[in-house]
Amino acid sequence: MERTHIDDTRNKAGQDVKIAGWVDVRRDHGKLIFLDIRDSSGLIQAVALPNHKEAHETAQKLRPEWVIEATGTINKRPEKMVNKDLETGEIELEIKEIKILSEAEELPFDKNGELNIDTELDYLPLTLRTKKNKAIFKVQAHIINAFRQFLINEKFTEIQIPKIIGEDAEGGANSFQFDYFGHTAHLAQSPQFYKQIMVGVFEKVFVTTSVYRAEKHSTTRHLNEYTSLDIELGFIKDHTDVMKLENRLLSHIAGELEKKCSKEFDLLKAEIPKVPEEIPSLKLREAQELIKKETGEDCTNEPDLEPQHERWLCDYASKKYGSDFIFITHFPLSKRPMYTHGDPNDQGYALGFDLLFRGIEITTGGQRIHKYGDLVENIKKKGLNPEKFSYYLQAFKYGMPPHGGLGMGLERLTMKLLNLSNVKEATLFPRDINRIDKLLSQ
Amino acid sequence: MERTHIDDTRNKAGQDVKIAGWVDVRRDHGKLIFLDIRDSSGLIQAVALPNHKEAHETAQKLRPEWVIEATGTINKRPEKMVNKDLETGEIELEIKEIKILSEAEELPFDKNGELNIDTELDYLPLTLRTKKNKAIFKVQAHIINAFRQFLINEKFTEIQIPKIIGEDAEGGANSFQFDYFGHTAHLAQSPQFYKQIMVGVFEKVFVTTSVYRAEKHSTTRHLNEYTSLDIELGFIKDHTDVMKLENRLLSHIAGELEKKCSKEFDLLKAEIPKVPEEIPSLKLREAQELIKKETGEDCTNEPDLEPQHERWLCDYASKKYGSDFIFITHFPLSKRPMYTHGDPNDQGYALGFDLLFRGIEITTGGQRIHKYGDLVENIKKKGLNPEKFSYYLQAFKYGMPPHGGLGMGLERLTMKLLNLSNVKEATLFPRDINRIDKLLSQ
Repeated sequence: MERTHIDDTRNKAGQDVKIAGWVDVRRDHGKLIFLDIRDSSGLIQAVALPNHKEAHETAQKLRPEWVIEATGTINKRPEKMVNKDLETGEIELEIKEIKILSEAEELPFDKNGELNIDTELDYLPLTLRTKKNKAIFKVQAHIINAFRQFLINEKFTEIQIPKIIGEDAEGGANSFQFDYFGHTAHLAQSPQFYKQIMVGVFEKVFVTTSVYRAEKHSTTRHLNEYTSLDIELGFIKDHTDVMKLENRLLSHIAGELEKKCSKEFDLLKAEIPKVPEEIPSLKLREAQELIKKETGEDCTNEPDLEPQHERWLCDYASKKYGSDFIFITHFPLSKRPMYTHGDPNDQGYALGFDLLFRGIEITTGGQRIHKYGDLVENIKKKGLNPEKFSYYLQAFKYGMPPHGGLGMGLERLTMKLLNLSNVKEATLFPRDINRIDKLLSQ
Repeated sequence: MERTHIDDTRNKAGQDVKIAGWVDVRRDHGKLIFLDIRDSSGLIQAVALPNHKEAHETAQKLRPEWVIEATGTINKRPEKMVNKDLETGEIELEIKEIKILSEAEELPFDKNGELNIDTELDYLPLTLRTKKNKAIFKVQAHIINAFRQFLINEKFTEIQIPKIIGEDAEGGANSFQFDYFGHTAHLAQSPQFYKQIMVGVFEKVFVTTSVYRAEKHSTTRHLNEYTSLDIELGFIKDHTDVMKLENRLLSHIAGELEKKCSKEFDLLKAEIPKVPEEIPSLKLREAQELIKKETGEDCTNEPDLEPQHERWLCDYASKKYGSDFIFITHFPLSKRPMYTHGDPNDQGYALGFDLLFRGIEITTGGQRIHKYGDLVENIKKKGLNPEKFSYYLQAFKYGMPPHGGLGMGLERLTMKLLNLSNVKEATLFPRDINRIDKLLSQ
């Protein structure tokens, strides 16, 4: 008999089926043994009765996470036994035959209980199997697919770029280094140089790629390896073209999640954000003045926003504009990378932006310098040696249009969309200063 | 005026438009200056006449790769001036105004000429702009998208996995190593462990990810960093379920390329392969006997195929079955990684396969060991220490279904689809023993 996925058993009442999956829970009532069996499509209650002796004996041995094939009849449950919380709650499987595909050892804990993050991480091959974690990473898969499909639809070309690099776009601090056949190589901190080069080829490109930060701090919002969703496009007017694109992109992602993941959002008690037609936007200095005026705290001389200011601005945007998002533009050039384009009408400030979402920065973007001479000049001004960037600089030497782009961390976006408290919860196998799968010995 | 993409000018005869792009070629006939202008959508011939004095003067300055905006009127060409090789060959742009967005230095060579591979690689930010290279990487973008969409449609879940790892699935030889906060980390040679773990979560998963090989050889088919297209799925009967899936996947990719990239294939003089309903399949020993019988060369005691044998078998499959593809199954277990499932009916041989395509191996796949005890046993048999794999082994300790999968190198697949002679031609920024963008000093 062919396997039926559990979700497909719902309209098979009266029929015999074979299902396959994991024992989620076993409830032994002596004569009646109930098994919750789960597969990738859903979960069903099955019951083994003594009249199928062999199956009943096998059922007695079963424990959580054993992998089985179960054959039997789908029965409609009596009205009062219907379980409305379960998709298959109107039926159950009366088991005739069980085949054990894999045994499992006794679980070290109830995997659906509340676990602290370290236990969760110590046992990911097991703890990722919970409903909660499956929902998180289903949503993540839909986010990345929605990101790519939106851009493909907008005639962007996907590119594959190297993570083994010589010189780093972000200046080289905080990069992991390693020996590459007798030479020093770095792990890329961003796809910045390559996506810019590729604007010279395809005009509009995107890339989904791992990036690396050898940062020593351990916070709830940093990872040492994460997935960057990157976009770069040519022939823009200025950074506002990039902001508009991101606005539409986020609307598309939210719409896709609405269509495909509402169950997961319900389970996680999270809300899909409303993306306004036009996300509100403030210059950094305007934001700082507001904070000063409204809270009394003077941060007007700071070159960046502190976490509490990001949170305050998001509250502000939510109250004033009903928006979960707010753009902050015009950071001081002195604090931005060498490829950043200044605003000719606002000396010393960048044609760039951060996007804040539910209290945290999820995107940095902006216009880039596109004229060769200007870029060489700016590299020098930053105290760097243009010779080191000669490969990248070729793109500009041989003609680059005005362009800009953005980068967005997939895990951070997932975390905030789902209201998780730690970015590690939104990362399948998170890398931090203390951990590569297992805790690193101290 | 809004910018019009060049491809959209074709039905705008008689209208004024603004286009933007790169000067591809300038032909100066004195009074008449012809410019081929290209953007991401196409290429158009434009002409600057002396009656628009300013534009005509600007046109005289222009050189290849300068980036411009040009405004003017789209004119229908007289019948005898129609260029049938050009999509916009029935029209041309009469320029009224030119705005220079970026200048370019004189090119070091004719970028459309025949270049040797080292020149090509030294100047990628420029040489990637050729028609040929744009076609290659357009096709590559369509391959990876077709791969993902096929699998999403088949209810596979995309996963994001780490490249920073502790122990390597492939045994640790040939891995790049680096210091990770005082500990030794490796760059992953494959996503093997993580995709298997995730079968325990989602049953059917895929990942497109960079992988790393610190191999010292420099050949036309190896890279030190490449993109692996990986699939893993649970509840299979055996390796043939994986082969059938790959067969359908390849049909889908070929179909998508047919629909979306036939222009690119024409330009590159390459043929989209016909994927048979059922790709022919031979056991390694059968293949070796055939080679011996037909060529006289005895390789029957070899554990693997030499490049010339892969080519011979592809010729054979092509002649005998009209297939560009052939599966070779049942390699000796002694040469396969510790997670490989043996054939219970053919002692010492793997339930696994290589897929050969146009003379080269493009996929390795098969069934994996799913029982905890068997896997621990096999790790020991390979002389490895199970303790080192304890994180991965949790998946098996807590119940794994029979499962299998495959990995396919995106660049190698692109190379063979497009009949390129070197895998570096199918890689945007290839990493090899001699090069990280620039040649490494000797």
